[in-house]
Amino acid sequence: MYDVIIIGGGPAGITAGIYSARLKLNTLLVTKEFGGQVGKKAVPIENYTGFKNIMGPELSKKMEEHLKSFDVDIEVDKVNEVKKTNGGFLVLTSGGKELKAKTVIVATGSDPRPLEVPGEKEFIGKGVSYCAVCDGPIFAGKTVVVIGGGNSGFETAQFMTKHAEKVYILEYSKEVAADKTNQEIIKKAGNTEIITGAALREIKGDNFVNSIIFEKEGEKKELDVQGVFVEIGYQPATAFVKGLVDFSETDEIIVDPLTGQTSTPGLFAAGDVNSGTFKQIIIAAGEGANAALAAFNYLKKNE
Amino acid sequence: MYDVIIIGGGPAGITAGIYSARLKLNTLLVTKEFGGQVGKKAVPIENYTGFKNIMGPELSKKMEEHLKSFDVDIEVDKVNEVKKTNGGFLVLTSGGKELKAKTVIVATGSDPRPLEVPGEKEFIGKGVSYCAVCDGPIFAGKTVVVIGGGNSGFETAQFMTKHAEKVYILEYSKEVAADKTNQEIIKKAGNTEIITGAALREIKGDNFVNSIIFEKEGEKKELDVQGVFVEIGYQPATAFVKGLVDFSETDEIIVDPLTGQTSTPGLFAAGDVNSGTFKQIIIAAGEGANAALAAFNYLKKNE
Repeated sequence: MYDVIIIGGGPAGITAGIYSARLKLNTLLVTKEFGGQVGKKAVPIENYTGFKNIMGPELSKKMEEHLKSFDVDIEVDKVNEVKKTNGGFLVLTSGGKELKAKTVIVATGSDPRPLEVPGEKEFIGKGVSYCAVCDGPIFAGKTVVVIGGGNSGFETAQFMTKHAEKVYILEYSKEVAADKTNQEIIKKAGNTEIITGAALREIKGDNFVNSIIFEKEGEKKELDVQGVFVEIGYQPATAFVKGLVDFSETDEIIVDPLTGQTSTPGLFAAGDVNSGTFKQIIIAAGEGANAALAAFNYLKKNE
Repeated sequence: MYDVIIIGGGPAGITAGIYSARLKLNTLLVTKEFGGQVGKKAVPIENYTGFKNIMGPELSKKMEEHLKSFDVDIEVDKVNEVKKTNGGFLVLTSGGKELKAKTVIVATGSDPRPLEVPGEKEFIGKGVSYCAVCDGPIFAGKTVVVIGGGNSGFETAQFMTKHAEKVYILEYSKEVAADKTNQEIIKKAGNTEIITGAALREIKGDNFVNSIIFEKEGEKKELDVQGVFVEIGYQPATAFVKGLVDFSETDEIIVDPLTGQTSTPGLFAAGDVNSGTFKQIIIAAGEGANAALAAFNYLKKNE
């Protein structure tokens, strides 16, 4: 029986782990991977205080090593469900583990929102990607499209201009939402083209993606591409606690922002997964510390 | 007229500055010094995610340099008062500056709580110190006393064992509040002695401190020391906004924890200065980001 099981290996989960270990709690961190969104960021991070300019995977590695310098058990596994038990919580994983803890901190962040068009699932890993940093280099000399004209989409496109020969950005609305700085960077890159007011309808291919079908002004068009990068936003990764804690309308876990306490005593949520207003690395890390300190107080009170 | 004036140069103020600059706000940061408590920490920092083990002044320097890599105006000055005006706020400094802004973020942290005994004020800089990291080395080979047996007191004592010949810890309560790890470190150091149940009554000296008078079990005793380090806690540095915003009972600025918004629209507070539950570097930094993003939204709404 652990004092605390932390679910998630991004900035919030890692910080919760560092704090729990320093508070001498018997701590387990379960995550399917380390780094979360940070590890996948396509442009340098300039707003994590103390690091002027650092690539996401490097910051993520520093955080992971920081955590691992403490006495924390780690399971690399995906959590399928959390159940309330008499003495605390039961955490069930894909790998078949049944883990027990007095408190749980959920810090699973958010996952890329899927396109939900024909061909998307079929071509995952065969041209469809949710992570340019992970998959970008294999598109050297190819033509790719980024779906989504927000900042993430533009940053992904910026990253891909260094690998691909040609980068399209496809945006559903009539205007892109990316800020001016990002728009200027893409304009300067040269090998880019922005298509607005365009609704993606299908991803086509044989063994690998070779085109997309989109609709613009009532007309269907085909665009030859070998890669499709999905950047239409994120959704909180909360399915495994559905019914256990109160959710917002957008499936975020509702918390007391001072402590990360959810509607279920002993269960805390930190980072992008919760109902906090702003989603930022440094804010998620701070919330991880808050949740661990609150879990510590909860354990002391219920000793 | 600035979009935002940030008051304070610790982790919260610096992070607010980084975010404001990146949001293209016309930003001024006013601080009497950079680093806040971080720069004065007597032991390595192990809980700022991404830095496994870093001395306070080094982390503080990294944060300051990070801020200065952006387009932010900086005034090294002490703020005496903030006034609400028609279009925003007026910030008055010790140096006689009258600075104007549409929004203000207060991130002044907290100051060491004074002892309030005879001799304290008189011997500041002449043996009485609130910062071992700043003043410690000048006590090489001397005998010093740390007032306060909490974690800060023990960490200060630990730092001073490397400089002074003998280090006393004087604690008012019958038991020290420092955690076991800190108590063990001090026990091992050898050149330390802990006096509990002792109330400090006076600091005596000529040009420089040469003793303290304390009372234990109804009896007054004199202890020969050349240095007195004050570690009896902190108080929020909020005097300059008294009357302008709602305070808690302990003079913290009451905020909406999601945004740092105070009771006065357009005025935000981040870090140890506000009513947040836990006071930690990473939490203060996260709150600085929150406040800058909230100030940005406020400015957009009131354009």
